[in-house]
Amino acid sequence: MFISLEGMEGSGKSTVLKKLHKWLESEGYDVVLTREPGGSELGKTLRALLLDAENTDITSEAELFLYLADRAQHVSQVIKPALESGKVVLCDRYADSTVVYQGYGRGLDPNLLHSFNEVATTGLWPDLTLLFDVEPEIGLRRALSRNIEKGLSRAEGRFEAEAMEFHTRVREGYLTWAALNNKRFAVVDASVTPEEVFKQVVERMRTTIAMMKTKNID
Amino acid sequence: MFISLEGMEGSGKSTVLKKLHKWLESEGYDVVLTREPGGSELGKTLRALLLDAENTDITSEAELFLYLADRAQHVSQVIKPALESGKVVLCDRYADSTVVYQGYGRGLDPNLLHSFNEVATTGLWPDLTLLFDVEPEIGLRRALSRNIEKGLSRAEGRFEAEAMEFHTRVREGYLTWAALNNKRFAVVDASVTPEEVFKQVVERMRTTIAMMKTKNID
Repeated sequence: MFISLEGMEGSGKSTVLKKLHKWLESEGYDVVLTREPGGSELGKTLRALLLDAENTDITSEAELFLYLADRAQHVSQVIKPALESGKVVLCDRYADSTVVYQGYGRGLDPNLLHSFNEVATTGLWPDLTLLFDVEPEIGLRRALSRNIEKGLSRAEGRFEAEAMEFHTRVREGYLTWAALNNKRFAVVDASVTPEEVFKQVVERMRTTIAMMKTKNID
Repeated sequence: MFISLEGMEGSGKSTVLKKLHKWLESEGYDVVLTREPGGSELGKTLRALLLDAENTDITSEAELFLYLADRAQHVSQVIKPALESGKVVLCDRYADSTVVYQGYGRGLDPNLLHSFNEVATTGLWPDLTLLFDVEPEIGLRRALSRNIEKGLSRAEGRFEAEAMEFHTRVREGYLTWAALNNKRFAVVDASVTPEEVFKQVVERMRTTIAMMKTKNID
């Protein structure tokens, strides 16, 4: 089973990831927790290049291809081997992030990006993609206060330094893309308390697990 | 005027590049000498990742996207600004290397790669591409003896460590791709002496310069 988590900064995605990891283990699954960018050895270098707030001169196209390089290596070295050995893969961001951020966010063609993803993923798509949906104002407020807690400047990351207009396009892009791929996507209301968010996730997980068991019996 | 140089290792490409640079300057042109991978600041990091012989576990797809990221940044930060300010750009390897090495060499679809290049280059193609054609046996012999001269192990680079079968596919791929794009490509016989190789280059340069002057007058 391959599950990806999507959503903008401050959507509470990372908190849920940890809880979901524990929950799946308590249900008896062997879980691999990973992320993009940075899930492979090569990816760690690429993550540093991509998320360094000083690299603001990277063009949209170069940024896109760095994410795709990271993904190709990650799929081949981490995700596929884990799935083949029967593990559950929980991935913090995957191919949908590229379509949404580089496509809806930065104006590249989402369909072209999807064909690029087909090459990078060699056609491997998640069984379930959880989209943590929250208004950009709330997400950004959470991300900024997290930075201050960590003793960082307010706009530590590249994404956190982006304009509100960009975050709005990203949020709407996520919802559009989820609607276009609604068999795989589950939209989670992430504006509520962490406990309420996680309750929605567990409900959806139970449905997916039941569906996959039926499919395997068929 | 935008000129790219293509050819396998040991084709004498780099020697000609230096001579051509001097020749163009002596003809009164302001020349920018650059290369891929590694022509931009970001590209230097990517070049190190790509050409490190220890990175043999990089997948074909990840390798492809790293070259494309390097190219996108290079076109935007180096090549376009130079051309816009009226300079001649001389580039050691460009988009054709991707089609030939990742396509004909590693088995990805050359037409798909061409469409990836369209995004990375934002549609910018050279006015002239000089292909230095040489039998793989000669090229590899030259590359290996160059390594020994430098006090390096025989198979210093990733490409030099590849099997002869790969180099043969690359050579044939270059010739096929040049034939498909024969308006832009000039095939130079690189099996002869450096002086004879350079003579062919200057002849072709004079033709291109004359053609471009006519085009500009029209």
